Amino acid sequence: MKVIKAVITAAGKNQRTLPLQTLVDQDGSAKSALAILAGELVGAGIEEIAVIVCPGDEAAYTEAAGPLARRMRFIAQPQALGYGHAVHCAADFTGDDPFLLTVGDHLYTSRSDMSCAAQLLATAESGRCAVSAVQATHESKLPYYGCIGGRRVQGSERLYEVETVIEKPTPTEAEQALVVPGLRAGHYLCFFGMHVLTPEVMGILGRQVSEGRGDLSSALAETARRERYLAHELAGKRHDIDLRYGLLATQLALGLAGKDRDEVLTLITETLVQSQA
Amino acid sequence: MKVIKAVITAAGKNQRTLPLQTLVDQDGSAKSALAILAGELVGAGIEEIAVIVCPGDEAAYTEAAGPLARRMRFIAQPQALGYGHAVHCAADFTGDDPFLLTVGDHLYTSRSDMSCAAQLLATAESGRCAVSAVQATHESKLPYYGCIGGRRVQGSERLYEVETVIEKPTPTEAEQALVVPGLRAGHYLCFFGMHVLTPEVMGILGRQVSEGRGDLSSALAETARRERYLAHELAGKRHDIDLRYGLLATQLALGLAGKDRDEVLTLITETLVQSQA
Repeated sequence: MKVIKAVITAAGKNQRTLPLQTLVDQDGSAKSALAILAGELVGAGIEEIAVIVCPGDEAAYTEAAGPLARRMRFIAQPQALGYGHAVHCAADFTGDDPFLLTVGDHLYTSRSDMSCAAQLLATAESGRCAVSAVQATHESKLPYYGCIGGRRVQGSERLYEVETVIEKPTPTEAEQALVVPGLRAGHYLCFFGMHVLTPEVMGILGRQVSEGRGDLSSALAETARRERYLAHELAGKRHDIDLRYGLLATQLALGLAGKDRDEVLTLITETLVQSQA
Repeated sequence: MKVIKAVITAAGKNQRTLPLQTLVDQDGSAKSALAILAGELVGAGIEEIAVIVCPGDEAAYTEAAGPLARRMRFIAQPQALGYGHAVHCAADFTGDDPFLLTVGDHLYTSRSDMSCAAQLLATAESGRCAVSAVQATHESKLPYYGCIGGRRVQGSERLYEVETVIEKPTPTEAEQALVVPGLRAGHYLCFFGMHVLTPEVMGILGRQVSEGRGDLSSALAETARRERYLAHELAGKRHDIDLRYGLLATQLALGLAGKDRDEVLTLITETLVQSQA
């Protein structure tokens, strides 16, 4: 299973301008968040990217994508009918192929030589099944994420067979259905904002959407009941630029993980000193 | 002299998207850079703002301005004919009135109870003349700024009579014409990105532009030869978001100067710790 297609969702009405924000990437180049994200995907082997946008945002996104725009097509989500519907807008684009799905308002830093996208694609391609990236997350943050329950794949440190998926679980739901043996107490495996999905998952999503329901988590819950579906705890971190100081935190993380680490440390120190003056 | 009009220039072709960037202001609200800047101006008594933009950027800027869009009119600079020309595009708007001029890619933090714009307006209104905000700047940064020469107004710590203006002076030019007695060695008074200009200055600029020359600094140099023109070393700092890590530096400065100082300090510390993990 070789994955060469990706879908980036960027049609959330409060999130439309986030992929257009300028950040300095780990190589020191100022780019839009969209261009940084797309660069990670293309570097991991993705050849074509569908970006789901609000109608009218195509021109601004094309400009923000820079040279990677030639890899992209923009698909307008005509109405804000939820995240599952947004993903399903790419069904014609993905067709019979597996695809990487990522949100447009997260960026990633890796702790290994492989980018987060490359780690996830390698797992999907060797496992020949859907795989969601997850991150052990403290229970205080459950209200923000989809969350999986399952058990560790034998002989693997970071892979899990997914048995159930719950979107934004309550602490009680999490305790009853989502405890994963081996994780630190009070921690759960929450979505990282990046998945590799199969045409079957898109099919499940399509049926749910046509019935007027369908968020991604419930389609993934159905996937877990029907076929092999893995979760991969990546060696890396997600950075949600949609949080109030999310752009600041993301830029700090990119800067400190990249070639300009010393410059960014100096900038932080100087700003701290001057803020007292 | 009461100043109620302002002009923000945002038509530089590499700077067009900067005023649209999202930052968290000192009160903790996420806003565009344009909305933060306009908020400072309106808070200082400005009632109407002309924003000089590239043709086609009006819609994005209107959205970025938020509720302050009702104070704004957008004037397209039809061709990129330089900064002086961009300012002169607002000549019909400013008419016979003095106006505050500021660039769209700087934000300001004040070290006094008055914002930087309010400090500058107070000086212009009491002095009844053009006033440029300046900042003592190390000679290594002369290639980035317009720079004034002059002498301190007697009895005032922070006001100067401007005698000459040179745009991006060489070190030799600066040493020969721009040394201001009383400043630290190797420091010069460089523009801060904010001026209060009179209708006479707009007239000088208009004559220069019609002759096919005309940058703001040469119009201000002519102003200095013809009439009283002050420079005010404001109690505050300019933050240039157009630098490579300018957004990061600006957000850190706003965060550390504002109500979320402790939250931002915590975020910096956590990110530093995690960047080692």
